Amino acid sequence: MNLAVLGYGYWGPHLVRNFVGRPDCTVSVVAEERPERAAAVRRLYPAVRTVERAEEALSLPDVDAVAIATPVATHYQLVRRALEHGKHVVVEKPLAGSVAEAEELVALAAGRRRVLMVDHTFLYTGAVQLLKRLVTDGSLGRLTYVDSTRINLGLFQHDINVLWDLAAHDVSIVRYLVEEPVASVQAIGVSHTPNGIEDIAYLVLNFASGLIAHFNCSWISPVKIRRMLIGGDRRMALYDDMEATEKVKVYDSGVEVSSDEERQRLLFDYRVGDIFVPKVAVREALEAMAADFVSAVTQGTTPVSSSAVGLEVVRILEASQLSIKSSGQLIRLDGAVVRA
Amino acid sequence: MNLAVLGYGYWGPHLVRNFVGRPDCTVSVVAEERPERAAAVRRLYPAVRTVERAEEALSLPDVDAVAIATPVATHYQLVRRALEHGKHVVVEKPLAGSVAEAEELVALAAGRRRVLMVDHTFLYTGAVQLLKRLVTDGSLGRLTYVDSTRINLGLFQHDINVLWDLAAHDVSIVRYLVEEPVASVQAIGVSHTPNGIEDIAYLVLNFASGLIAHFNCSWISPVKIRRMLIGGDRRMALYDDMEATEKVKVYDSGVEVSSDEERQRLLFDYRVGDIFVPKVAVREALEAMAADFVSAVTQGTTPVSSSAVGLEVVRILEASQLSIKSSGQLIRLDGAVVRA
Amino acid sequence: MNLAVLGYGYWGPHLVRNFVGRPDCTVSVVAEERPERAAAVRRLYPAVRTVERAEEALSLPDVDAVAIATPVATHYQLVRRALEHGKHVVVEKPLAGSVAEAEELVALAAGRRRVLMVDHTFLYTGAVQLLKRLVTDGSLGRLTYVDSTRINLGLFQHDINVLWDLAAHDVSIVRYLVEEPVASVQAIGVSHTPNGIEDIAYLVLNFASGLIAHFNCSWISPVKIRRMLIGGDRRMALYDDMEATEKVKVYDSGVEVSSDEERQRLLFDYRVGDIFVPKVAVREALEAMAADFVSAVTQGTTPVSSSAVGLEVVRILEASQLSIKSSGQLIRLDGAVVRA
Amino acid sequence: MNLAVLGYGYWGPHLVRNFVGRPDCTVSVVAEERPERAAAVRRLYPAVRTVERAEEALSLPDVDAVAIATPVATHYQLVRRALEHGKHVVVEKPLAGSVAEAEELVALAAGRRRVLMVDHTFLYTGAVQLLKRLVTDGSLGRLTYVDSTRINLGLFQHDINVLWDLAAHDVSIVRYLVEEPVASVQAIGVSHTPNGIEDIAYLVLNFASGLIAHFNCSWISPVKIRRMLIGGDRRMALYDDMEATEKVKVYDSGVEVSSDEERQRLLFDYRVGDIFVPKVAVREALEAMAADFVSAVTQGTTPVSSSAVGLEVVRILEASQLSIKSSGQLIRLDGAVVRA
Repeated sequence: MNLAVLGYGYWGPHLVRNFVGRPDCTVSVVAEERPERAAAVRRLYPAVRTVERAEEALSLPDVDAVAIATPVATHYQLVRRALEHGKHVVVEKPLAGSVAEAEELVALAAGRRRVLMVDHTFLYTGAVQLLKRLVTDGSLGRLTYVDSTRINLGLFQHDINVLWDLAAHDVSIVRYLVEEPVASVQAIGVSHTPNGIEDIAYLVLNFASGLIAHFNCSWISPVKIRRMLIGGDRRMALYDDMEATEKVKVYDSGVEVSSDEERQRLLFDYRVGDIFVPKVAVREALEAMAADFVSAVTQGTTPVSSSAVGLEVVRILEASQLSIKSSGQLIRLDGAVVRA
Repeated sequence: MNLAVLGYGYWGPHLVRNFVGRPDCTVSVVAEERPERAAAVRRLYPAVRTVERAEEALSLPDVDAVAIATPVATHYQLVRRALEHGKHVVVEKPLAGSVAEAEELVALAAGRRRVLMVDHTFLYTGAVQLLKRLVTDGSLGRLTYVDSTRINLGLFQHDINVLWDLAAHDVSIVRYLVEEPVASVQAIGVSHTPNGIEDIAYLVLNFASGLIAHFNCSWISPVKIRRMLIGGDRRMALYDDMEATEKVKVYDSGVEVSSDEERQRLLFDYRVGDIFVPKVAVREALEAMAADFVSAVTQGTTPVSSSAVGLEVVRILEASQLSIKSSGQLIRLDGAVVRA
Repeated sequence: MNLAVLGYGYWGPHLVRNFVGRPDCTVSVVAEERPERAAAVRRLYPAVRTVERAEEALSLPDVDAVAIATPVATHYQLVRRALEHGKHVVVEKPLAGSVAEAEELVALAAGRRRVLMVDHTFLYTGAVQLLKRLVTDGSLGRLTYVDSTRINLGLFQHDINVLWDLAAHDVSIVRYLVEEPVASVQAIGVSHTPNGIEDIAYLVLNFASGLIAHFNCSWISPVKIRRMLIGGDRRMALYDDMEATEKVKVYDSGVEVSSDEERQRLLFDYRVGDIFVPKVAVREALEAMAADFVSAVTQGTTPVSSSAVGLEVVRILEASQLSIKSSGQLIRLDGAVVRA
Repeated sequence: MNLAVLGYGYWGPHLVRNFVGRPDCTVSVVAEERPERAAAVRRLYPAVRTVERAEEALSLPDVDAVAIATPVATHYQLVRRALEHGKHVVVEKPLAGSVAEAEELVALAAGRRRVLMVDHTFLYTGAVQLLKRLVTDGSLGRLTYVDSTRINLGLFQHDINVLWDLAAHDVSIVRYLVEEPVASVQAIGVSHTPNGIEDIAYLVLNFASGLIAHFNCSWISPVKIRRMLIGGDRRMALYDDMEATEKVKVYDSGVEVSSDEERQRLLFDYRVGDIFVPKVAVREALEAMAADFVSAVTQGTTPVSSSAVGLEVVRILEASQLSIKSSGQLIRLDGAVVRA
């Protein structure tokens, strides 16, 4: 399988390094406008050709697949062109900047029978794979809430707000863990810079079952926190990505109903139990993502980070933006505003 | 100063112990219905008289002041009766169950020229006193955000939801630290028990200056977190109440504007700097609260945890409840719903 | 059972509070020289009589048992007198200031058929009880090492060094967990004050099986650490007393032998596995100690913190002192210096 | 400056990467016996020549300097040959396997006027550089103790014990921070494998001033700790290398003498104060080491990690081995055993 990589800025080098390292894949060309970055490619990988324009790479007949690591605003155009050239595509998250664009790309890939994958890298971490097992095998029981915090003193983005930047990760994780579709969305955000791009935002996803997922995102926190609590009626899990070794803890704790005869009403009591910290497989998530993409292209397998997950994430982020702009109104996933 | 204490359940014993220990105050009577609790008072404090009914204690002519530690639903009635009997009053938080009741009590106290204080104990901790100095002396600069998390596997309350129980603490702290009034409120909450009382809730306070305060409260978290981030445009503070010694950290970090000539637009960059962990005075907050109450009664000083703060907290909690019940609508503090 | 308590300084009040709270025991008298402390006893416990001199309390015929919380230098004399008066005794750790004294007291108690117990409180914590079970039921396998750190910015003692003060706790724990006797002792200590009392010291216990236990004690550390690692050939345990809830962690980790054909020699590799954090029973250790003493006196049961453990601790501490004074020479537990 | 790198196992690739990245240095040859490793060099760095035998690289006339990353047992021979060929040398720690060898190499380098540097990488970290400033500018006052712990579930070495592997780092740091020479050494170690190589060891360094440094090293700890406490009579520092951002904390705490009139003797009390967490410069230590070596070779500057430090480390490790083998006897740095 011959691969073209578009963009060699922040994420591109990681993609090239991982695909170069695979025996089942050849990185044949990298498209990059800036001369000094293209020179860096040639210095590190003398066998890889560089071109200036993406279209040049896309039109090479021996290129089977394309990995795209360019700014969000270019995703739609580049993915579309790649698919039109008959290439398989993996694109950095998010899939596109709008639901309309994302839907068009998904339809196009389906029509052309090409793989379209979004690089939601976190889905390939040992920790998220472990959480998926805990949900699937019933260890946690019925899910009751997700509470996610991803805050740090981060690089301000200039084209997307903090939800598109940070919540994209956590929303992809929740969509992967939870089978149920999101019913409605509510979000609040504030900007502390003149460009009006939100640097702090809070997002809530409501599910029909009563499950609620809350996301706290910030670029201006002095401390770095990446923590997700997943509550179930049997057990609860804590996913702390800042922990070196104890990334996932499973709490044998919960809430139980007892009856208080004296007061003639229900009492809810909590149960504190053991904690289990399963060993999390150590592997580079990006390596697993690359393997998943190559397998999807060459074996026809269904990738973990499918375009369906990618489209759903865009749907949620677009709705959250609508909610922020309407002072936190409840937005149904079909786009309707829910009035109280 | 002779004090009556009403209620000897969870909080009453702490109040009695702290007032008994003072040389400027005598606990003369405790009112408690349950015989075994009243017996416990007499066993530990043979000099303290016990009565069964609150009214009995309130009508004693030599009682100057009353400390009330009974369920929220009884606050209005008991505070009113105490004031009508001409007693000074300190009442456990919250001041009352509604704004209407709280306003009536504040007016009554003012009319009778009696002290009315709410025991928002956290205001008396060394940590909050230190934060107040950091805000007042300009160390933090202009406040930009507050992000508060208070979650644990907590005792479910049966008369009030998780915001009235937990956010009451953090809202009182924010109201104490921030001079500016709250403009509007938004809240979302869910219940996982048949009684419909919210056990997870998220609250946002909006201030006219653009300051935003977010509160994450839960009774069903397997981990206990009590953390408040206070962002300023000069420095940021982290208040972690679970830390034994390093409760307050001051980060010399922030966001700065730089200009990127190439792209012809503003870039916002972050600044990471030193961290300062000031020594926090170790004292029992309740002891300081007791001293503040005695001083207010006997010296006429203005207490830190005044009825004005207490009323404001009730105003915010009542508005948050209205917001929860209307699917997170933005509620102005005058009670109006803000339509998008 | 009628109890006399000797000494109402730092530890005495805790003892009185715990024994007063028991239905199967009456604290009839407290002996305390300082008038203001004696007055504190009478104020808090009007039913308890106070006397000035210990001998006065010991000679009361209705006193069955005595709890001693006086300075170490007085232990021998007071325990001896109490036993001679036919009383059962529990004494604060350490049992006595020398092996000779401790042996005499143990013999005296045996001769008079009286309970002699040392209050090594930590043995009664939920954490140490859990560790004991992990050792006894084979969960850890054969013990290979213990590594203990107990350092803080502590109150300097004036009669005993940091080992007698702090290591006494950890040595009692190790002696309780490990059935095997200590073969030899090595210790190093330094003093940073003119009185020459060691404020930092390191102690090593050697066991015949090859087990080694190391203790790091300091009164002049800016951070407070109370941590004990217990290595076994099946699993390893971490006991961190500063953790609020996760006090004991069990690591399914170890060392395995593999063979490296190329180099013709053994390779030892490590195995990283799951971690298990069992729920630790929450109870006041001192309450359990009091129950154990009352049971020993009234039911004839064998106490956990027996005088045998107490004597062994003194034996180890005395040998460690000898080692410190001889520049860290290896000292056999029979007192002999082991020459290299 | 043309550089040869000997050995491309664990550390070699890091050296090559850092020297290749420098504009003032060319890596012209790598000597590596194993064909697959040599192939890896050629794949990643097509411009770098590979040879099989070290001697081949050393005899190249255009090679100015050599970086050695081979097993400890080969250090003496390879450094000697490199110096004899007139090359400047940087060698992985430790400098050599014995004091006799290390002294010969230092003398040879001096005689040939060649740079001889040991890669004690930690000396180049931002954290250790900061600690050096705190010691030098008097912030900590007179040093009173160092307490170091470096334990983990580590790779067992087959040629050197845990002190030569792990304590080498901490001893180099202490020798760099403390100007005073080490007076004597005491060490205890145990092996849990049939080869008898110590996997747990404790080392004490005594200085004439009374300063004591203690090192706790283990390859079989389930938790990874890298922590060094540095006590001074003005302030104390905590260096925790496992912390992502707060690597160095400075405690404004200490011990003070007060007088207790009643007891007619000195009392020592502790002072708890503020904590300061200075920002630590983020840089790759190895990059700074490489720069230091190139500067020493081309500019004649004195390197931080000089052969004097390297020799002193070997002296201490050799003495510690002697102490371990003589049951922890006190060993003077001149090799004499100190009898009690």
